[in-house]
Amino acid sequence: MFVLVNLKAYDCNSVAIAEAAHEVAEESGTRIAVSPQSAYVERVAATGVETWAQHVSPTGYGSHTGSALAEAAAAVGAVGSLLNHSERRLKLADIAAGVDAASEAGLAVVTCANDPAQCAAVAALGPDAVAVEPPALIGGDESVSTADPDVVTEAVGAVEEVDEGIDVFCGAGISTGEDVESALELGASGVLLASGVAKADDPESVLRDLVEPIS
Amino acid sequence: MFVLVNLKAYDCNSVAIAEAAHEVAEESGTRIAVSPQSAYVERVAATGVETWAQHVSPTGYGSHTGSALAEAAAAVGAVGSLLNHSERRLKLADIAAGVDAASEAGLAVVTCANDPAQCAAVAALGPDAVAVEPPALIGGDESVSTADPDVVTEAVGAVEEVDEGIDVFCGAGISTGEDVESALELGASGVLLASGVAKADDPESVLRDLVEPIS
Amino acid sequence: MFVLVNLKAYDCNSVAIAEAAHEVAEESGTRIAVSPQSAYVERVAATGVETWAQHVSPTGYGSHTGSALAEAAAAVGAVGSLLNHSERRLKLADIAAGVDAASEAGLAVVTCANDPAQCAAVAALGPDAVAVEPPALIGGDESVSTADPDVVTEAVGAVEEVDEGIDVFCGAGISTGEDVESALELGASGVLLASGVAKADDPESVLRDLVEPIS
Amino acid sequence: MFVLVNLKAYDCNSVAIAEAAHEVAEESGTRIAVSPQSAYVERVAATGVETWAQHVSPTGYGSHTGSALAEAAAAVGAVGSLLNHSERRLKLADIAAGVDAASEAGLAVVTCANDPAQCAAVAALGPDAVAVEPPALIGGDESVSTADPDVVTEAVGAVEEVDEGIDVFCGAGISTGEDVESALELGASGVLLASGVAKADDPESVLRDLVEPIS
Repeated sequence: MFVLVNLKAYDCNSVAIAEAAHEVAEESGTRIAVSPQSAYVERVAATGVETWAQHVSPTGYGSHTGSALAEAAAAVGAVGSLLNHSERRLKLADIAAGVDAASEAGLAVVTCANDPAQCAAVAALGPDAVAVEPPALIGGDESVSTADPDVVTEAVGAVEEVDEGIDVFCGAGISTGEDVESALELGASGVLLASGVAKADDPESVLRDLVEPIS
Repeated sequence: MFVLVNLKAYDCNSVAIAEAAHEVAEESGTRIAVSPQSAYVERVAATGVETWAQHVSPTGYGSHTGSALAEAAAAVGAVGSLLNHSERRLKLADIAAGVDAASEAGLAVVTCANDPAQCAAVAALGPDAVAVEPPALIGGDESVSTADPDVVTEAVGAVEEVDEGIDVFCGAGISTGEDVESALELGASGVLLASGVAKADDPESVLRDLVEPIS
Repeated sequence: MFVLVNLKAYDCNSVAIAEAAHEVAEESGTRIAVSPQSAYVERVAATGVETWAQHVSPTGYGSHTGSALAEAAAAVGAVGSLLNHSERRLKLADIAAGVDAASEAGLAVVTCANDPAQCAAVAALGPDAVAVEPPALIGGDESVSTADPDVVTEAVGAVEEVDEGIDVFCGAGISTGEDVESALELGASGVLLASGVAKADDPESVLRDLVEPIS
Repeated sequence: MFVLVNLKAYDCNSVAIAEAAHEVAEESGTRIAVSPQSAYVERVAATGVETWAQHVSPTGYGSHTGSALAEAAAAVGAVGSLLNHSERRLKLADIAAGVDAASEAGLAVVTCANDPAQCAAVAALGPDAVAVEPPALIGGDESVSTADPDVVTEAVGAVEEVDEGIDVFCGAGISTGEDVESALELGASGVLLASGVAKADDPESVLRDLVEPIS
């Protein structure tokens, strides 16, 4: 089980959350990663926690002012990157080029997508995993397991048909340990979380509760 | 065999080319369509030629100023639309929504893509056909059959694996009847053409030569 | 006073609204224009009403599949175009190029902008008029004259400082004849309307009421 | 005189260049800043050199995955940001919001623009300085002082008319100390450089030569 905490552009203490995540990961043996703003990747990685970029550009070295170079993220400690998050939707050709750019820099890639058909589409581009983010669940309070469990099983099936080696993560509707457990039962092998952890008064205890059922 | 003549934003006589295409289509029994600027769809369709939009927006009716509403294209005579052309690359989520918007308006859809992997990706979104446009061939003088024949056969294979009902067109590197014949042999069931016809002194004779080997 | 009715991508009878607008314009002596979907420009212009495009591309003739060529809009009867509408925001460089492309094709241009500072910015690019669209008023029921009258007078002042020859239109918050009158008093020389006319049961009577106080 | 070295996404040693720039700045008394990839801002700032972001997002704190939060750049040591660079052109509304976001985070802002008219446009949005980047000079070997000196004087005039407090920088065509001197004579109060320094075998000596005539 892989738990990725997306800190977005939240007004939060990225390093403190990273330390908490590292602590809980060590303690529980669960793989937990933190995905901070690009400028914070270095200090988040310095805590020892597995660190992911939130996005990398579809370009390599060159004249690309204002890009998010995969090699730079890797050089300061990132080991993976999200791509095509619902808040940063990309052109199809740029997802393909972004997967290549990230891979070339040694980063793992999780491409996000809205529904099973789009999950199959991004799977064809060769990422390491696909995260399904049903628009109806994004940023809401509903749980994927009660609101729309089929979307996960269908995404798992659709991605499997393209490439059995690609994992499927549940990218929305997760806020409790039960949700994590449900995602696992539905066939997901990872979850993406954001505000539930990042905006919590005590992120460490939230994370501990989250991974408890699966540790 | 399906031949689609993309008039882009060329400085050409769209109606005259449409009439020529209609004439050659009738004469040869080959399916030939013309894809003009949105503003010209109505007058091109009035010639009797099969008429395609160059793009439709991923949205339906609503507050979308400056969009290209699929229903409007259909209402003035279009029967299909290109989507994600190399000169109009779209976000993955917008290709998916564009395929849906076009289908709902009764338009056939050909989604374009760069290479076999991206062809498989767009195929997963359910278009009627996929056109492979290798960047190296776009706008060039080289023929797909001599320069990069594998890309067509691989695209055909990749799309077939996703859905056998989806046709594959050759979207670049076509300028002669021999190229059309080669595309057919490589497994394509259609071709996209542009300047070779649109900028010709005598589009009708170019089209006649193009379809001659396959009529 | 200039009244522009933006039909967006509404599910409405564009030709019937155009006929109503033409009728009321003739009757009242007020300049009324209709801005339909690109595909409908030809049939709207055929009613005799002044016809505007909702958007044109920042490019001229060439390899621009899926663009909205200013020359094509002009060829089928448009005499002007909106640019940078709040539903079709453009890059600054593309607004500049779009103003040029439209002008070269003989189209008048109204560039839209959010607030007085952005109105001054687009005025520097040389359009014929600027329409101020305060985000808070867009699509709402509030009237610009009661909700935010200062934004119009400030936009008028800001644009005047850049170029006294550029008109300022009120691009949101207009639904009654009183609103039109208020806009006029605040220094605007035109208004943009949309759903109030396009979705009305009787667009002709709505338009008649709108222009009544200024005729 | 302000010299900003834009490291783009070049395959270069950002920290070594920063150290060289810091050294030359101290030595010569010239203000020299370095603008690295977002992920490198912290380590570049640690050298003591004035550090600038290459871009910041038009949004503040919130659900903006993959954004470049101005507050994050500031927190790791940036004191300014480029905006609307020719390689990262933005929507007008996003330039306006980006200027606000950067200012709120305490960052100075240099907005880039193509020509005098666009310089006036971005000046209306309230940045600290405007950099004029004539497309013909970008990335080329020609010097602004010989190829297109009028564009700088016209940009200075156009910006002055909008706001006398806004500086104008020369954003292209600078590679020697003579170019810097010419830019100064043409009315610019700063220059943007990129490959001339970033790709040099000995960036320190290049920088020393550059600032020599103005120290």
